[in-house]
Amino acid sequence: MMGAFQPANPEFETRVRESFARQPFMAFIGAEIAVVEPGFCEIHLPYRPELTQQHGFVHGGALATLADNAAGYAAFSLMPADASVLTVEYKLNIIRPGLGDKMTARARVIKPGRTITVVESNVFGTKDGKEVMCVTSIQTIMALHGRDDR
Amino acid sequence: MMGAFQPANPEFETRVRESFARQPFMAFIGAEIAVVEPGFCEIHLPYRPELTQQHGFVHGGALATLADNAAGYAAFSLMPADASVLTVEYKLNIIRPGLGDKMTARARVIKPGRTITVVESNVFGTKDGKEVMCVTSIQTIMALHGRDDR
Amino acid sequence: MMGAFQPANPEFETRVRESFARQPFMAFIGAEIAVVEPGFCEIHLPYRPELTQQHGFVHGGALATLADNAAGYAAFSLMPADASVLTVEYKLNIIRPGLGDKMTARARVIKPGRTITVVESNVFGTKDGKEVMCVTSIQTIMALHGRDDR
Amino acid sequence: MMGAFQPANPEFETRVRESFARQPFMAFIGAEIAVVEPGFCEIHLPYRPELTQQHGFVHGGALATLADNAAGYAAFSLMPADASVLTVEYKLNIIRPGLGDKMTARARVIKPGRTITVVESNVFGTKDGKEVMCVTSIQTIMALHGRDDR
Repeated sequence: MMGAFQPANPEFETRVRESFARQPFMAFIGAEIAVVEPGFCEIHLPYRPELTQQHGFVHGGALATLADNAAGYAAFSLMPADASVLTVEYKLNIIRPGLGDKMTARARVIKPGRTITVVESNVFGTKDGKEVMCVTSIQTIMALHGRDDR
Repeated sequence: MMGAFQPANPEFETRVRESFARQPFMAFIGAEIAVVEPGFCEIHLPYRPELTQQHGFVHGGALATLADNAAGYAAFSLMPADASVLTVEYKLNIIRPGLGDKMTARARVIKPGRTITVVESNVFGTKDGKEVMCVTSIQTIMALHGRDDR
Repeated sequence: MMGAFQPANPEFETRVRESFARQPFMAFIGAEIAVVEPGFCEIHLPYRPELTQQHGFVHGGALATLADNAAGYAAFSLMPADASVLTVEYKLNIIRPGLGDKMTARARVIKPGRTITVVESNVFGTKDGKEVMCVTSIQTIMALHGRDDR
Repeated sequence: MMGAFQPANPEFETRVRESFARQPFMAFIGAEIAVVEPGFCEIHLPYRPELTQQHGFVHGGALATLADNAAGYAAFSLMPADASVLTVEYKLNIIRPGLGDKMTARARVIKPGRTITVVESNVFGTKDGKEVMCVTSIQTIMALHGRDDR
């Protein structure tokens, strides 16, 4: 389903990591950007009690935040230097609550495009020492050309 | 599109508010449950710099968190006392960034059901002193019968 | 939620109706375009046995077809004369099967945009002589500028 | 992402094929069920001019119909003999128009469940002699226990 993608901007990784670092909400919840490749992004979020819902698992809103950010940056990694990135929409299924002591979001571009990029973004937790999928999503991301992300 | 709904549990408001209060993530981001009616829920989130994305607006993940919680509690308000609530999935469009100094999520049940309840949940910000829609979503919420929410 | 929209093309109704008439699939299933207003479109589909699923109701795929087309044309009605229309994505909930002897899709623009337009599109059937919602959807529609729809 | 699934009903393939055969809309558009395995279903739709939209490609509504049916039957293949199947909702992205002379939908269960099953369902066309993805979707399918599909 995925091919190898050519980034339009050789500085793509730096640009993605700098944009991530400019999001106060990421620092607030404790999310870290782990891997950036052309068309791919992985974000980690360690468990913290203040991130949980009423049953003690990481809140679906925190999982959605990770899935959204990973998808946006997977798409952004393929965009030219003069483009800004925008999430148009996404749909996610919560297939398990946010289990375990670390959440990992992995997003992969399914179909890049000049304006619209479609991304699959999943979030995994841990159960019985094994990684399990908690959220699966499809996201539509848009490039705004001529608008620097800064 | 909406009718008047009869709550199965006369204590529905107390139960929704208590469940909300048991979510540490809500206190962490500063969200407050404002209105609970049969099939309806409104949640407020004041602007705070730590909730923002790279352009200074409230992060889409925080908006999704509000939309998700409001939808879940709109559905939960109609469920019997022995049921627990679960978000199966949702889809949201971000039609504007999280503008202004207060975000308001309003969720309304479109179609209640014994197992599956469909909810429309929108999040509003403020622009030029007027409320504007930032997120629109459709959410699928499930009742787990025989499992108390506590 | 909706305002009054100004069409960019005064010939919008003719253009929508002509585009609809060029879709062989619409004639094949028997769909008719009923109402075209700025930012709004209504499509009718009379019940026919060949459109049904295994329980005798109009097939969800036929309902999705109506919802999709109505949304696309609601958005197209606001686009300038040199633009073509494209469905980027949609999400729909089937809240009832396709009941009764006529299906009616009604789509209304929630947020117009130069590139992306967000539309709510619902499909109604009939139960006990009253209109009931069968499908609710949110759709993301794109304008392709400089590409005539023909 | 996928494991091997154990069907609850050893007659699953016969049951899926018989249910498909009872859908008049499938015969009407010319769709054929090609492969049924536990948690997997593949449906084919040969190109026919009456299935097209205004630009000569297979209509998005026909693609949605395939994606929906394949997903429903992928889930149904894992359900016990006394259960009926219902599409709760889906979200699809149209990443290319319905290109080529045969459409192929392939659906795979991501997460089975007693009540709710989550399925990924994609539709492929042909471009330059190679299969290309035209639609990607995530679908939520429900088992209705104690209600035979007939």
